[in-house]
Amino acid sequence: MLAGREELGQRSETVRRANLSAIVRALHLRGPLSRSELVATTGLTRSAIRSLVGDLVAGDFVTEEAAVRLGTPGRPSPLVRLVDESAVVLALEIAVDSAAVAVVGLGGRVLWSRRVERPRGHSSLDEIVADLSHLAATARARRPAGETPIGVGVAVAGLVNRATGLVAFAPNLGWVDIPLGDRLAEVLQVGVPVGIANEADLGALAEVRRGAARDARDVLYVHAEVGVGGGLIVDGLPLSGSAGYAGEIGHMPVNPAGRVCHCGSVGCWETEVGEGALLARAGYPVEGGTAAVAAVLADAAAGRPEALLALDHVGRWLGLGLAGLVNILDPSRVVLGGLFSRIYPFVAGTVEAELDRRALAAPRGLVSVVPASLGVDAPLLGAAEMTFEPLLADPVAWLGPRMSLVQLASA
Amino acid sequence: MLAGREELGQRSETVRRANLSAIVRALHLRGPLSRSELVATTGLTRSAIRSLVGDLVAGDFVTEEAAVRLGTPGRPSPLVRLVDESAVVLALEIAVDSAAVAVVGLGGRVLWSRRVERPRGHSSLDEIVADLSHLAATARARRPAGETPIGVGVAVAGLVNRATGLVAFAPNLGWVDIPLGDRLAEVLQVGVPVGIANEADLGALAEVRRGAARDARDVLYVHAEVGVGGGLIVDGLPLSGSAGYAGEIGHMPVNPAGRVCHCGSVGCWETEVGEGALLARAGYPVEGGTAAVAAVLADAAAGRPEALLALDHVGRWLGLGLAGLVNILDPSRVVLGGLFSRIYPFVAGTVEAELDRRALAAPRGLVSVVPASLGVDAPLLGAAEMTFEPLLADPVAWLGPRMSLVQLASA
Repeated sequence: MLAGREELGQRSETVRRANLSAIVRALHLRGPLSRSELVATTGLTRSAIRSLVGDLVAGDFVTEEAAVRLGTPGRPSPLVRLVDESAVVLALEIAVDSAAVAVVGLGGRVLWSRRVERPRGHSSLDEIVADLSHLAATARARRPAGETPIGVGVAVAGLVNRATGLVAFAPNLGWVDIPLGDRLAEVLQVGVPVGIANEADLGALAEVRRGAARDARDVLYVHAEVGVGGGLIVDGLPLSGSAGYAGEIGHMPVNPAGRVCHCGSVGCWETEVGEGALLARAGYPVEGGTAAVAAVLADAAAGRPEALLALDHVGRWLGLGLAGLVNILDPSRVVLGGLFSRIYPFVAGTVEAELDRRALAAPRGLVSVVPASLGVDAPLLGAAEMTFEPLLADPVAWLGPRMSLVQLASA
Repeated sequence: MLAGREELGQRSETVRRANLSAIVRALHLRGPLSRSELVATTGLTRSAIRSLVGDLVAGDFVTEEAAVRLGTPGRPSPLVRLVDESAVVLALEIAVDSAAVAVVGLGGRVLWSRRVERPRGHSSLDEIVADLSHLAATARARRPAGETPIGVGVAVAGLVNRATGLVAFAPNLGWVDIPLGDRLAEVLQVGVPVGIANEADLGALAEVRRGAARDARDVLYVHAEVGVGGGLIVDGLPLSGSAGYAGEIGHMPVNPAGRVCHCGSVGCWETEVGEGALLARAGYPVEGGTAAVAAVLADAAAGRPEALLALDHVGRWLGLGLAGLVNILDPSRVVLGGLFSRIYPFVAGTVEAELDRRALAAPRGLVSVVPASLGVDAPLLGAAEMTFEPLLADPVAWLGPRMSLVQLASA
């Protein structure tokens, strides 16, 4: 062997931590698994799985249950299940019309959640921080005393700089370079990291882990409310760009003869497919919000031509923009979220026809377009997933003291 | 320790292979490095570097030279250098106007290369395979007897399905679903894998490893000749999409009132910024090719208004499309290759102004746009880099018999 004894020891500990990560991640993403399924999923040996699961049981992170015999030969393999309250995260969201909170357990179960309406329009940092800390306090009051989240994740309808935690640009809130992460960390006083990310990036993460793109590795999640944003998953991992700003697909120029966008450019995609475009064409006030969108959909269901024409307009531009994105990114799945999932039944045919017409045959033939399955909560659930990520990558570091004792016991 | 003896053994061998990979990759990408620099680059201990480099020296893959003392304290650290002829790859390219071959050594040095003109227009698979195998035979005749490439990489101006090796769509050649990889493997009879990829994807790989984006991790390489293609590098790795078709940025719809594109859609980016658009606006035949482009640039240098207006048109649309791509992908570097690097001096100001006007301030502020530095050879060099990749990922598997002997000697 090349490495000396000391290095081998370090390396073995590294390997053990990586193996625990593989097991906890598999259980988190796929739910309870038998030891045999863990062997198949992780590529580890049966004896390694037995030892590592034993450590996790001793630390109260998983339970093992007698498996039901399913008619397969051999001994039944015990079912390994994460204890969802063994580690929880606090997820928060500032959407255009609402704010939300959830306490989510390891394994992804939502233990408690609440969504409250908030008025549209600009809000100060103080107002938003007060709203979110009130929601967080309510959540924690409903949960067992002593339960401490391992982290806080926040979904924001805006551009977020991952390195600095600044919300670089949130037009709906009227924010430029606002230090939301730092202020929330001060006010919440949870003593754990507060991570901030864009709502569409997090919606993409949730849909690929627990929603309409569970079986896909290259995913474009398109989220529309007032604005249009996107979240990109490439080979199973989020594409965040050099600073975390990637996915601003709403500001792809598609119509140089079109309208001025609030971003300062002309003919951005969201000027043709955003909520305002739909409402204006359907004869409703541009600022009518969710209620007006519901009225347009009711009109369309009743066959009213103005609503149908407005939806046809949005569907055609939606298909045109998706064709460009399919050509650029070659995703296997496009997930339509927010406003687009609500209008999906009315625009699906038009969108597919535009894709046939405008996307290159090779990537077109491999992509399916589906509505989101997690609804309005996708970004909130994505915030939870983001916050679990460091634990999934290295459970020993995060489950800390209990795992250290286990390690000593089995050394 | 949790793992049994047998597993530890396997794991240690896995660790050793990964460490050899880290060393060989660092030397390949960065050139000769001292042992101290290898310690800093790989994070391995000084003693591990000494052992592993010793193995590579014994296998004749690297040499160690007495380092020049540079006035720094301590003993001079020997300089470790890859032996570039210890492993070579054969790179081939089918471009619009030319075909090319290169023999490239480990470390990236071009040991021999040739580029020949070929007429534009449709070519049969037989014609292209004959041209490429003739080039390959010429290259191998110029190299030492017994030198066997570890792989063959081919850059093609077309959509390539990575899984099947089919060229799914190459409009300039008139190809749909052509099995170039299989046929080349039959004809070349080198007994090694033949990998095929899109020219812009490979140009991106070369520019990020050895060209204008060496210091960047999130790169958009934009390549124009007759058509416009892109190569995306995300956090240092190529973004290929679900089937390898990603990067077809030339078929992003930017002008619904524009011209019909050869792909069947309307107003694709390449209808405004491709070679044909430039030539038509400058008053030259659309099929004039490289000579006509050179004439346009000469006209522009002489101040002729028609050429300047044509370049201004292309510059504005180039900036518009880049703004959308910057918003979507948040790259830190945009590299303009092919036609765009030749027109760069005439359009740089216009492109920057359009980016200022149309890209969101946050990603705009972080991106720089530069011309490619590897010129016409970027895709060819990228084909070599792609072909070295399996060796860089696991040198033991690829340098095979010699490394096994070394391993036994030091076990």
